[in-house]
Amino acid sequence: MARRAKGKVSGQVSGQQSAEDRLIARHFKPIARHPGALGLTDDAALLTPPAGHALVITADAVVGGVHFFPDDPADAIAKKALRVNLSDLAAKGAQPAGFVLTLALPKGVGDNWLKSFARGLGADAKKYGCPLLGGDTVLTPGPVTISITAFGTVPDGTMLRRSGARVGDHVVVTGTIGDAALGLKLRKERGARRRWNLNAVLQRHLLGRYLVPEPRCALAEAFRQLASAGIDVSDGLAGDLGKLCRVSGVGAEIDAAKVPLSKAARAALAAEPGLLKTILTSGDDFEVVATVPPASLDVFLTAARVVGVSVTAIGRVTAAKEVQFIGPGGRPLSFARASFSHF
Amino acid sequence: MARRAKGKVSGQVSGQQSAEDRLIARHFKPIARHPGALGLTDDAALLTPPAGHALVITADAVVGGVHFFPDDPADAIAKKALRVNLSDLAAKGAQPAGFVLTLALPKGVGDNWLKSFARGLGADAKKYGCPLLGGDTVLTPGPVTISITAFGTVPDGTMLRRSGARVGDHVVVTGTIGDAALGLKLRKERGARRRWNLNAVLQRHLLGRYLVPEPRCALAEAFRQLASAGIDVSDGLAGDLGKLCRVSGVGAEIDAAKVPLSKAARAALAAEPGLLKTILTSGDDFEVVATVPPASLDVFLTAARVVGVSVTAIGRVTAAKEVQFIGPGGRPLSFARASFSHF
Repeated sequence: MARRAKGKVSGQVSGQQSAEDRLIARHFKPIARHPGALGLTDDAALLTPPAGHALVITADAVVGGVHFFPDDPADAIAKKALRVNLSDLAAKGAQPAGFVLTLALPKGVGDNWLKSFARGLGADAKKYGCPLLGGDTVLTPGPVTISITAFGTVPDGTMLRRSGARVGDHVVVTGTIGDAALGLKLRKERGARRRWNLNAVLQRHLLGRYLVPEPRCALAEAFRQLASAGIDVSDGLAGDLGKLCRVSGVGAEIDAAKVPLSKAARAALAAEPGLLKTILTSGDDFEVVATVPPASLDVFLTAARVVGVSVTAIGRVTAAKEVQFIGPGGRPLSFARASFSHF
Repeated sequence: MARRAKGKVSGQVSGQQSAEDRLIARHFKPIARHPGALGLTDDAALLTPPAGHALVITADAVVGGVHFFPDDPADAIAKKALRVNLSDLAAKGAQPAGFVLTLALPKGVGDNWLKSFARGLGADAKKYGCPLLGGDTVLTPGPVTISITAFGTVPDGTMLRRSGARVGDHVVVTGTIGDAALGLKLRKERGARRRWNLNAVLQRHLLGRYLVPEPRCALAEAFRQLASAGIDVSDGLAGDLGKLCRVSGVGAEIDAAKVPLSKAARAALAAEPGLLKTILTSGDDFEVVATVPPASLDVFLTAARVVGVSVTAIGRVTAAKEVQFIGPGGRPLSFARASFSHF
């Protein structure tokens, strides 16, 4: 059990800070400016949603060697840890309100790593209006492990659920699908670079999409007001849409050719057509798939254009109780697995 | 990167659950009965504090090999993970409202372990009125790592802070101090058992106090209404009282002989007087140290008796800007370190 202190405090104890306190004061206090954070000088934070609003709470952990590579830049790791949570808030139609962080660090993580981590975290906290409220730092014999609980607000009773999809609704998805999975493949398989024959720009695009996702917070309000159901695509489009349909008691028919792909993904797919299944069933997209009633589709697409997030209608909700992806030649695709699962 | 699924899903994807979904449905859904948990079938939970109340948020992580022994019973690990957070809520005068959990599990953690973990967690969620609202399960190449964010409520503006202590206030502490540190010593040092010559009952007491702390939730309301400042004793009485005093801009003089000790701790101390420093500066007590204005002390002590939590007045707040523990013969004690720190 690693219950040892490195710092030595002699004489009386008041007025002295432990090394842990100093770490928090140096790196995290500067990014915890929300009054409810109490300057990180207390055991708890305070948060009150505005009158008539509910708090939306989501929690996601990322682990070195599982969700990121241990040698990824610390600021990118921090951003990913926060953004996977912001993506959930966006899919629920919630406005970010703040977050708490528990950070488990191996021995020997230096001041530079922490400085970069806090810089990345602080930049995103500011960018997305989601301030650090509090947390905990602990030692671990394992890899860097970051758990974030993020808070958002919605007017009472209006959180977008997985359960509201109705037969005939359009299925829409933000951004592009599959980039992160291809970026991960590029890092893991030397052969992929050669097979796909991508130029440096396209490679960088895929690698960057794996490293730091783009949460669709700008669309949260449109989702909340106009969509009937939503979920963030963290474990693969096919599987996550399947979850939404299961809870809604419906199915969906998706035209695989309409699933939005980046230029890089299209190039890779042209070189290796078998990647279609990777693209549709692998994790880490952090886009949002939602269902939108036909009467609202035009307004929704206009709202998306206004905030500058690309949105594509890829199919319709059906009564079939299953999600069918229709592939080339009108044949349904079948997948060995629908989505990423840790277990 | 361990992004692989074990389960195989063939054909269409809707109606099928991933192994991760099944794990959550089997073990955690039964203990997530709060309506805001949405049956753990959505990406987020909902929580709204009652009108005129603020949400108090605290986050603490526990790590195998650091905060518990990997072979500790899973139900005890779950209880410890939740209770270290409940202890913070108690010290802030907050009533528990719920919690979210991120659980990082190594490969090979079996169904029995999870069943026991969920049973322990569910029992405490019920006991303390703090339901599971949501969370995340991920794989880790490291040890079991549990991060909990717990929520409590207080009437607006009444959270007990670290910062309210005033010169002349009494310093009070709940329960007994040092048991957990001695319990940890018993597990780590074979010689300790022999040196302290404790019978089986006293040994079990110390071991149990390390394994599963006793959060003082029953006293939360009395702390909120009657105390001027409070902090939970997680890193050692001397250090945590030091933190409270530093934020309050005061000091304290503590009569070491008054610090409440269990029968087991007294027996160990009699056999090895040097343990006094261990008792006063080691972590894991999860008691509460608070300051109470002289005019409120009697009412506070009566309230503590009513709810059945032992409370001891151990000293007074001073203007000295340091915490002095007065030892045998009236001499101030000095400590090589005031409290546990991870870094």
